[in-house]
Amino acid sequence: MKIDINSDVGESFGIYTLGNDAALMPYITSANIACGFHAGDPFVMKRTVALALKHHVKIGAHPGFDDLAGFGRKAINVSPSEIGPLMLYQIGALYGIVQAQGGALHHVKPHGALYNMAVKSNELAEAVVIAIKTFNPALYLYGLPNSALEWAAKKHALPFKAEIYADRNLTDEGTLVPRTASNAMIHDVEASALQITRIIEEGYALSVHDKHIPMRGETVCVHGDNPDAVAFAKALHGYLKGTL
Amino acid sequence: MKIDINSDVGESFGIYTLGNDAALMPYITSANIACGFHAGDPFVMKRTVALALKHHVKIGAHPGFDDLAGFGRKAINVSPSEIGPLMLYQIGALYGIVQAQGGALHHVKPHGALYNMAVKSNELAEAVVIAIKTFNPALYLYGLPNSALEWAAKKHALPFKAEIYADRNLTDEGTLVPRTASNAMIHDVEASALQITRIIEEGYALSVHDKHIPMRGETVCVHGDNPDAVAFAKALHGYLKGTL
Amino acid sequence: MKIDINSDVGESFGIYTLGNDAALMPYITSANIACGFHAGDPFVMKRTVALALKHHVKIGAHPGFDDLAGFGRKAINVSPSEIGPLMLYQIGALYGIVQAQGGALHHVKPHGALYNMAVKSNELAEAVVIAIKTFNPALYLYGLPNSALEWAAKKHALPFKAEIYADRNLTDEGTLVPRTASNAMIHDVEASALQITRIIEEGYALSVHDKHIPMRGETVCVHGDNPDAVAFAKALHGYLKGTL
Amino acid sequence: MKIDINSDVGESFGIYTLGNDAALMPYITSANIACGFHAGDPFVMKRTVALALKHHVKIGAHPGFDDLAGFGRKAINVSPSEIGPLMLYQIGALYGIVQAQGGALHHVKPHGALYNMAVKSNELAEAVVIAIKTFNPALYLYGLPNSALEWAAKKHALPFKAEIYADRNLTDEGTLVPRTASNAMIHDVEASALQITRIIEEGYALSVHDKHIPMRGETVCVHGDNPDAVAFAKALHGYLKGTL
Repeated sequence: MKIDINSDVGESFGIYTLGNDAALMPYITSANIACGFHAGDPFVMKRTVALALKHHVKIGAHPGFDDLAGFGRKAINVSPSEIGPLMLYQIGALYGIVQAQGGALHHVKPHGALYNMAVKSNELAEAVVIAIKTFNPALYLYGLPNSALEWAAKKHALPFKAEIYADRNLTDEGTLVPRTASNAMIHDVEASALQITRIIEEGYALSVHDKHIPMRGETVCVHGDNPDAVAFAKALHGYLKGTL
Repeated sequence: MKIDINSDVGESFGIYTLGNDAALMPYITSANIACGFHAGDPFVMKRTVALALKHHVKIGAHPGFDDLAGFGRKAINVSPSEIGPLMLYQIGALYGIVQAQGGALHHVKPHGALYNMAVKSNELAEAVVIAIKTFNPALYLYGLPNSALEWAAKKHALPFKAEIYADRNLTDEGTLVPRTASNAMIHDVEASALQITRIIEEGYALSVHDKHIPMRGETVCVHGDNPDAVAFAKALHGYLKGTL
Repeated sequence: MKIDINSDVGESFGIYTLGNDAALMPYITSANIACGFHAGDPFVMKRTVALALKHHVKIGAHPGFDDLAGFGRKAINVSPSEIGPLMLYQIGALYGIVQAQGGALHHVKPHGALYNMAVKSNELAEAVVIAIKTFNPALYLYGLPNSALEWAAKKHALPFKAEIYADRNLTDEGTLVPRTASNAMIHDVEASALQITRIIEEGYALSVHDKHIPMRGETVCVHGDNPDAVAFAKALHGYLKGTL
Repeated sequence: MKIDINSDVGESFGIYTLGNDAALMPYITSANIACGFHAGDPFVMKRTVALALKHHVKIGAHPGFDDLAGFGRKAINVSPSEIGPLMLYQIGALYGIVQAQGGALHHVKPHGALYNMAVKSNELAEAVVIAIKTFNPALYLYGLPNSALEWAAKKHALPFKAEIYADRNLTDEGTLVPRTASNAMIHDVEASALQITRIIEEGYALSVHDKHIPMRGETVCVHGDNPDAVAFAKALHGYLKGTL
C-alpha cells in the first residue's frame, strides 16, 4: 500500500508570497495547485507546475471560490448549478498551463469554504464530482473520508482518495481534537508517521487515550506555509520514504 | 474555397449583458468566446459554448488582458514572457468548459489591446503563437494578414486564418478607410458579400475607387453587439450560404 | 409631509450599461449610487454624481458586498467587524467623487445581500449604523421599517428614513404579496400614487382586500432598470409632484 | 527646518502580508497608505490607519492603478481624464476609514507606474494635482523635485513636498547612481543621515566624488519591506531625531 503526501501549493499572488513551495516540493508526492480564484495567478501557476514536474510530484487542481480577499475561506451562498462552471474554469486553466509544460493533471481537491460546504452537502458534492467527471473521469478527487464528497464520488464512479491530516490528534470517537484543546496537534513527527502508517497500512488510528479507531486514509495532507511545516514535511517524508 | 464568418461572443459578465449571442449564433461559423479576463465569466462561457455547439459553430478562445473595467482595450506594458501564462490560463479555462460539454476547441483569436500589440510586435506575436502551439499545435490562429501574428504563425508552423472585416471600405493602398471618413463603412450587405467573395475566392478586393487590391482572407469578422449587426450577419450569411 | 422618491443608480460598469440613469434622474429625489463593489466604477460614479447634481437629486451611497460577478446579491458569511471597513471604504470613495464636484452626501442605503442580512441581524445592523455614524452622524440611513436597521438607527440616534415600495401590493397582514401571486404588483401608477400618499401622509395602507394596515414610510423606492420603470417613475413623479 | 520621513505602508492584502508596518511605524513621520487598488484592502487600511494614529504619524493616500496582480507597477495607457476619478475614489476611500477613527488626511503620494508616468507628463501631473485640489486644497502632494508633478503643484498652488531617497548615492550630475552600479546604495545609516541633513538643511548633496550638488528635499522616503529596512529606518530616525 502506497502512501501519498499532499500539500496545497501555488498560493502566492502577484508580488505576494505565501508558503515556500520550492522548499516543500521535494517532500510531497501530490501538489494541490491554486487556480487563480482564491489564490494563485497564471505566473505563479506556471512556476508551481514547473516545480512539481521537476520533483515528479503529481499535479492536482485546487479550485476555490472567486474570493482572493477572503482566500476562499468565506462561505458563499452558491447553488449546485454554479459549481460546474466554477470548477471547470479553474481545472481547465490549470490544465492549460500543465499541458504547455508537457505534464498531466492527476487529481482535484476543492479548497477552503468550497471543500467545507461540499463535504456536508450531497447536492454540492455531486456537482463537484460531475464537474470533474465531465472534464476527465480518470482524475482522482481528494477529500474527507465518509463525507458527501466520498459518497458522490462512489455514486458516479469517480476515483477517490481519502485524505487524513498528518498533525492532528483524534478523540475516542474518531473526530479531530478541537484546536482549542492543548493536545489538538501532534508535534512529534515520529508519532505522526506512526499514526499515518497505522491508518494507511492497517486501517485504524489510536485516539489520545490509545483507543483503536477504525480509519481509512490514502493521502496525507501536510501544510507548507511556515518554516516548521517544511521541516515537518521533510521529516515525515523521511519516515515514510519506503512506502511513498 | 470555404468562407468562414467569425464573431466575438460571450462578452457578457454577471448581471451585465453585451451583444445578443443567441440571435447571432445561427449566422456565424466561428465563435470567438471571451475567457473571463476582459469579459465573460464561467457561467456566460458555459451558456455561450452550449449555444455554439447547438448551432454547429466552431469554438475559439478569445483571450485578452485581465482588465474587465477597460474591456481589454487598454494597452498594458507586458513583456513577452507574460503572454504565455496569460493565454494558456484563458485557453485552458475555456477548454475546461468546452470539454465538459463534449465539444472541442478549434481556434484562438487574441482580443483588443493584446491583438493590436501582437500584430505589430514580432516578439509578442511569437509568444502568442508559442503559447497556442504548446497547448495544441492543431489550433488555428485568427489574425490580421501580413501582420507579425501571421509571420510568427508561419515561423512556428501554426495553422493561421487571415481575417478580413465585412463592413469596412478600403483605400487604393489597401488599408481601411479611416473611421472618420464618411465612406468608412460598407452599409450595403450585398456589396459586403461581393467584396468578401472577391477576397476569399479570387484574392483581390476593390478599393473605394474600384482599384484592384490583392488581398487574402480566410475568415470574415462580423460584429454582434447591436441589432443592426445581427441583421447584417443574417443577411451576409444568406448571401454567402453556398460557400460557408 | 414631504415624499421622497429614491432609486438605485450608477450600476453600470466599464463597457457595461445597466439602467437608464439619465432618463430616470429627473423623476427621483434621492439617488442611491453604487460604490464600485457590487456595481459601478470611478468613472460611472463621476457621471452619476454629475447627473444627480444637475437634477438637484440628493446623493446617497449604496454600498454592497465586493462581488461584481454576483451583483452583490449573494449572501456572504461576514462578521460584524468586517462591516465597518467595507462600508467606510465605499462611502468614502463616493464622498471623494462628490466632494470634487462640490456636492454633499445625504444618505446611505446598503445594497442587495448586505441590506437583506442587515435588516434581520441586530449585530450586522448595528455595525452598519456605527460605520455611517463614525463617518458622518448627519447622514440618513434608508431601510426597511421595523427592521433591525431601524432598531439600530434609533439606538444610536442616526437619522432614518423608512422605505416603502411603489409597486407592490400588501396582504391583510401588511406583508408584501409574494411575487409568485398574480396580484403581487401594482401596475397602475395612479393606484400606486394613492397608496404611497396614504402611507406617507396618513400612516396606513390598504391591503388587496381594502383592509386598513397601519404603515409608515418616508421614502419610496422605484426601480430604473427597464423602460417601463422609467415611465412608471415619471408618472409617479407627476402624481406626487406637489408633495415632493 | 523640519525633516520628514515617509514610507509606503498598508500594502498587505487579505491573507497576504507585505512589509512590517507595526515595526516600521515608530520610526517614520509620514505614512503613505495603499488604497485598495494596487495593494491594501479595507481591513488592512483600517489597521494601518490605527497604527499611524497611535504613533502620531501623518496619514497620506497612496493611490495607484487598479492592478493588484502587477502591484501597480505596470504602465497602463490612461488618458488624463481618467486620473481624476481613479484618484478621488481612492483618496475618498482612505478618507472614509481615517474619518471613522477621528484622524485627518495630510498628503497624497501617487504609487508606482502612476507616479512614474506623472513625473514625466505635464498633462497627467495636472490631472493628479487637480484631483487632489478639488478634494481638499490643503493636502500636500509628495513627489520628485523638478518633475512635472512639482510644476503642476506650483501652477495650481497645491502644497508640495520634494521627496528624496535615503539610501541612494548620487552621480556628479545629481542623478541617482544606477542600481546596476556597485555603489548605487548608501548602506551606512550615518552617511545617509548626513546626506539627508545636507540636502534638507543646507540645500546641497555630495556626489560619490564629493562634488557639491544643489538639491532640495523636504521629505525622505524609506522602504519598509524587509527587516534590514526597518533597522535602517530605526537608525535613521535616531540620527535625525532632533530635527523630525
